[in-house]
Amino acid sequence: MKTEELKKLLSSLTLEEKVGQLVQVTPDFFGNQGEVTGPMTQWSMDEEQLYQLGSVLGTHRATEVRKIQENYLAHSRHKIPLLFMADVIHGYETIFPIPLALASSFDSELIETVARHAAKEAAKEGVHVTFSPMADYVKDPRWGRVLESNGEDPRLSTALTKAYVRGYQGENLKNESHVAACVKHFIGYGAAEGGRDYNTVDVSDVELYQNYLPAFEGAISEGVKMVMTSFNSVHGVPVTANTSLVQNVLRGKLGFQGLLISDWAAIAELKAHRIAETSKQAAQKAFETSVDMDMMTDCYLKELAAIVEETQATEALDAAVWRVLSLKNELGLFENPYRGLDTTVDLEELTKASYEAAVRCAVLLKNEGVLPLKKEEKILLVGTKAVTRDVLGAWSWIGEMEAASSLSEGMGKIVSTLEILPITDEVPDWQAIEEAASRADKVVIAVGETSEEAGEAASRTDLTLREIERTVIQTIYKKNTESILVTFSGRPLVLTDVEPKVKAIVSAWFLGSQTGTALASLLSGARNFSGHLPMSYPRSVGQLPYSYQEMSTGRPKTAENADQKYISRYLDEENGPLYPFGHGLSYSEFVYSDLRLSNKQLTRNEQLTLSFTVSNLSNQAGYTLPQIYFQDAFTQIIRPKKELLAWQPVSLEPGETRQVQFVVEAKDFAYVHSDLARTTDKGTFHLFLGTSAEKELSTATFEYVG
Amino acid sequence: MKTEELKKLLSSLTLEEKVGQLVQVTPDFFGNQGEVTGPMTQWSMDEEQLYQLGSVLGTHRATEVRKIQENYLAHSRHKIPLLFMADVIHGYETIFPIPLALASSFDSELIETVARHAAKEAAKEGVHVTFSPMADYVKDPRWGRVLESNGEDPRLSTALTKAYVRGYQGENLKNESHVAACVKHFIGYGAAEGGRDYNTVDVSDVELYQNYLPAFEGAISEGVKMVMTSFNSVHGVPVTANTSLVQNVLRGKLGFQGLLISDWAAIAELKAHRIAETSKQAAQKAFETSVDMDMMTDCYLKELAAIVEETQATEALDAAVWRVLSLKNELGLFENPYRGLDTTVDLEELTKASYEAAVRCAVLLKNEGVLPLKKEEKILLVGTKAVTRDVLGAWSWIGEMEAASSLSEGMGKIVSTLEILPITDEVPDWQAIEEAASRADKVVIAVGETSEEAGEAASRTDLTLREIERTVIQTIYKKNTESILVTFSGRPLVLTDVEPKVKAIVSAWFLGSQTGTALASLLSGARNFSGHLPMSYPRSVGQLPYSYQEMSTGRPKTAENADQKYISRYLDEENGPLYPFGHGLSYSEFVYSDLRLSNKQLTRNEQLTLSFTVSNLSNQAGYTLPQIYFQDAFTQIIRPKKELLAWQPVSLEPGETRQVQFVVEAKDFAYVHSDLARTTDKGTFHLFLGTSAEKELSTATFEYVG
Repeated sequence: MKTEELKKLLSSLTLEEKVGQLVQVTPDFFGNQGEVTGPMTQWSMDEEQLYQLGSVLGTHRATEVRKIQENYLAHSRHKIPLLFMADVIHGYETIFPIPLALASSFDSELIETVARHAAKEAAKEGVHVTFSPMADYVKDPRWGRVLESNGEDPRLSTALTKAYVRGYQGENLKNESHVAACVKHFIGYGAAEGGRDYNTVDVSDVELYQNYLPAFEGAISEGVKMVMTSFNSVHGVPVTANTSLVQNVLRGKLGFQGLLISDWAAIAELKAHRIAETSKQAAQKAFETSVDMDMMTDCYLKELAAIVEETQATEALDAAVWRVLSLKNELGLFENPYRGLDTTVDLEELTKASYEAAVRCAVLLKNEGVLPLKKEEKILLVGTKAVTRDVLGAWSWIGEMEAASSLSEGMGKIVSTLEILPITDEVPDWQAIEEAASRADKVVIAVGETSEEAGEAASRTDLTLREIERTVIQTIYKKNTESILVTFSGRPLVLTDVEPKVKAIVSAWFLGSQTGTALASLLSGARNFSGHLPMSYPRSVGQLPYSYQEMSTGRPKTAENADQKYISRYLDEENGPLYPFGHGLSYSEFVYSDLRLSNKQLTRNEQLTLSFTVSNLSNQAGYTLPQIYFQDAFTQIIRPKKELLAWQPVSLEPGETRQVQFVVEAKDFAYVHSDLARTTDKGTFHLFLGTSAEKELSTATFEYVG
Repeated sequence: MKTEELKKLLSSLTLEEKVGQLVQVTPDFFGNQGEVTGPMTQWSMDEEQLYQLGSVLGTHRATEVRKIQENYLAHSRHKIPLLFMADVIHGYETIFPIPLALASSFDSELIETVARHAAKEAAKEGVHVTFSPMADYVKDPRWGRVLESNGEDPRLSTALTKAYVRGYQGENLKNESHVAACVKHFIGYGAAEGGRDYNTVDVSDVELYQNYLPAFEGAISEGVKMVMTSFNSVHGVPVTANTSLVQNVLRGKLGFQGLLISDWAAIAELKAHRIAETSKQAAQKAFETSVDMDMMTDCYLKELAAIVEETQATEALDAAVWRVLSLKNELGLFENPYRGLDTTVDLEELTKASYEAAVRCAVLLKNEGVLPLKKEEKILLVGTKAVTRDVLGAWSWIGEMEAASSLSEGMGKIVSTLEILPITDEVPDWQAIEEAASRADKVVIAVGETSEEAGEAASRTDLTLREIERTVIQTIYKKNTESILVTFSGRPLVLTDVEPKVKAIVSAWFLGSQTGTALASLLSGARNFSGHLPMSYPRSVGQLPYSYQEMSTGRPKTAENADQKYISRYLDEENGPLYPFGHGLSYSEFVYSDLRLSNKQLTRNEQLTLSFTVSNLSNQAGYTLPQIYFQDAFTQIIRPKKELLAWQPVSLEPGETRQVQFVVEAKDFAYVHSDLARTTDKGTFHLFLGTSAEKELSTATFEYVG
């Protein structure tokens, strides 16, 4: 539809019809023939109101979308197609690794590919917008939603967030294989106090601008169509009512001009926050904050018309409705309300992509010569996650668990003598486990979380393995020390107590539909491990929140003073994690040359080239992940001891050597100052080439002279 | 000295002499005859500089003070007496309960008395200033310095901080029985990330103004003479260099005109923070922040004269020196440089006061009919803390541990048949423990922290009892269920796992010199328990940070929705603590009448009287602690579900009934808004009368109409 027509359409809408466009409901509001349904009754809504609604979230299939859209268009006065949105978080029906696992690839291209596949499969089923990516800055794995995050580094998260947006949206939304992206949750949600979901948040502006905004800024620079407000408060005000953050920062500083939607029921929840006494106050606060669309409450539906009349806010209303209509138009819905429903996907291609992603995302945390498994070895597979198909992780609601590949299934194909002892909630036969362990050459112990234990509303105070799992590990350890621990989880776990009792550890996250097949390929050495941690594995829940970007203190702990008392340390635990950010092993042996700089000085308008070579000395092909960290030697406000600057997964054939280059410039070293401006200080900068936040291979130094 | 003379003195000082006044060193800088000592050499300082110094911290005794002062005055050109400061945190030689324990009394009068006694004993030994009270807002018991705090409620902490200042300083500092107080640590130190001492801090301004400033404001309103800057950063800038917080907030908004000192070495530590490249930069930043005195670094000594000359900052220098000279003058040092050294204390009176304080500060957390002990009962006393005299807690450096009363000693006096089984680091004789437990009528299990495990630089990630202690409890439990757990600690511990295995729990904190005697009086029922928790005992370290003042969220957990998933909760733990703020049991039975209000409305210029009666139905005298909490029903920014408004320890004889009244006014309900102003909203307020943050006895409601 041309802009002129769209404007005409907008001006032809009544006040109620405009408000309707700003309301999103679930599919159950729409009966088969448009009859009055339960939810409609609950909202005391009539059919006229129903056929003025703007959007639906959470439809399951193309048939459902088609039926609702047909019925809606048949009854609606203006025949403005409904906008269908859904949580397509890591795949639609073909489930890819959870986002935290995908982030373990450190690979924007991989993520863009995954998002493109997910978009295509979702679009075919009538999804127009996905509530993804999640760009929240996180550093507390107690919070279950770290599962949906890109991990603890803002720069990595920004790059990956941008990749998701590119993958989902493609070049042009008229292309029916793509969907619009909705970046979430603006802002600060990941700082939920005590890691407890939906809990309050307290962050300073400096911290907010430094670590929380960049990934959103990245999404907006990629043209993301939608943003979702978060449940939490910032500076005491729930973001859904936080005019300062939304109007000044999101709409102002970040320049976001697209559609802003509340999270589920967040407008009505302003009452639970006790900052609104009535639904009308809640609606007014959200509307003044420029939240365009009300997800699943009747606040806008019931109250917004009166508010607009009383406050003479027609212009603001029109702007909000315009953003809805514009998105519908960009998606081509006026031309084809059944957008996507006639497209197809190549299931084999999707399955293959899911497998490839899974292979890239598992992280080998430890390997003392016990992996890869050899074909002729007798393997015992034991544990709570040995045979389960609960490997998809949260937000895989369309994916069929029954179709997922379990670890036992995958291993069955690569191991000739495989004994399997699943552990259930019942008391295991400990003697049988001991005997089986004694018989086996090696033992694979598969343990970890269920899909219910990680994700939204799945915060935990204890991140160790469950009691029975720890006992299994201890029991095996007594009989067979050649064991490999495979952990499934939506978050970094606390493995400090079990780590000494196993010779290898694989973090398998939730790898999606092809979990078992992919893990089998990796365990057998048919494929090589290449994942690296996007989030530290802490030693103890008592260290949290934690990020490798530890800020400078006046009393830093160093190798020299570690035994002194009056330094920043714990009495009973190391400061650092069990496995640091960036850590991940491979079957290959990679050797790096020293880091070289093109210049010892950097000026305002020039670039600096960092280069080194890396060789694969082994006879197995594999990825290595060179990581460049930097430290600004002296700063205006305190900065981390080290922060990630650049990284690149590098694939190397056996014996191959490659030169790697990163080109950086002054703005890459900028940070948020007290005035909230992101600028670069003149002075000395230290660079570290390494393979994790802790593993330094070589260093270099330059001066930024302005 | 008259102001005119003091001004003349100031103007007669050379630049170097002025700088000297701003430097504080340890006593070892002063050799017996003023010879060059080790520390002097380290700072390459000459004797001329030595005899220009302004202050000494940490002298041990009157003799040492007299010698240093005599020697100094003999050599110094202007004969400006040295100012002696020391950490007198909970008593000088007679040790009182640690501050967190004192806060358990909720009793400003008690604390004022304790501070007066401590001041008197310290003044006699030549102390002029004590680095107390600590007014830091805390909600993370991983941080060891919660030991020095007044607990997690800002209003309680403010009241107690003021009481300390009154007690230390008295009416007039010319009175040689008093010392000047130095309130610390300005500001935000208690929010050290991960509860790790000296770690960085991130707080918003709203949070800072709401919870962190009030206790400092209280101290300043009581005329506190000194403030100490904290080690941590706020908004990215170490407070010792944070001109915005110090100049605008402390000196500006809070109107502090006294002497500002850095914490130990905090000026030089600006280099470790990496915000200063050189000592000169560090000195300049601290000086521009109006930090008057440099504690134990040579930054000011070496660099300040040049900085003052280069930046033409003579006026600022004179102002700083003036604050030093003024305090010396207020203390009467010009008239008597040996101030206090000829005063005496009544040791018996001090001992009695320490005993009374200890009795008031122990908290009875649980008692299922097992306490008080009866004279004729056979008691087994067992545990790591059964016989130890390590009961003074951190910051009791002058107090003699050997003179402290242990639990076994105290109990020996009240129990006729007492068997004692201390637990050491060696493997205990478990069979002997079992047999002793079987023989005994009741078992007192004494466990907990050493003095080294709590306090400064004593952060812990695990707050449960140590393994051996838990095994002792389990072993006893198998043989004798009539057991009483007595915990020693400088912080709330995690007792969730052991709580079901004992019938009574006493939080004994570190009660000071009279620990054993006081606990024996309480356990035997000769005296009654009256302490209440100033800080929640969490269920798990995974809940931290935690305060009973949980902020409103959009998805609050309630009795009705507790089994639902999508609410703010943990999957594996309750949200709330094991024992809440304000909790504390008594041997007496107290009955409260309903809370009554003098009016259903409150206006701007009127007061509201809250009243109720409380009766002691038992035949034992005791204290009860009525607590009034409030909730502002609807707010501009989110506020806690409940916050403490008023409290009063009430002593009641057997059968006695008393009416209790609290008079409140609009400003008592004010909170910090988005513009950082502390104002009161019009509207509904709910009041709760209770005996802990969770135990509600009666409620009332009023309207504030402005």
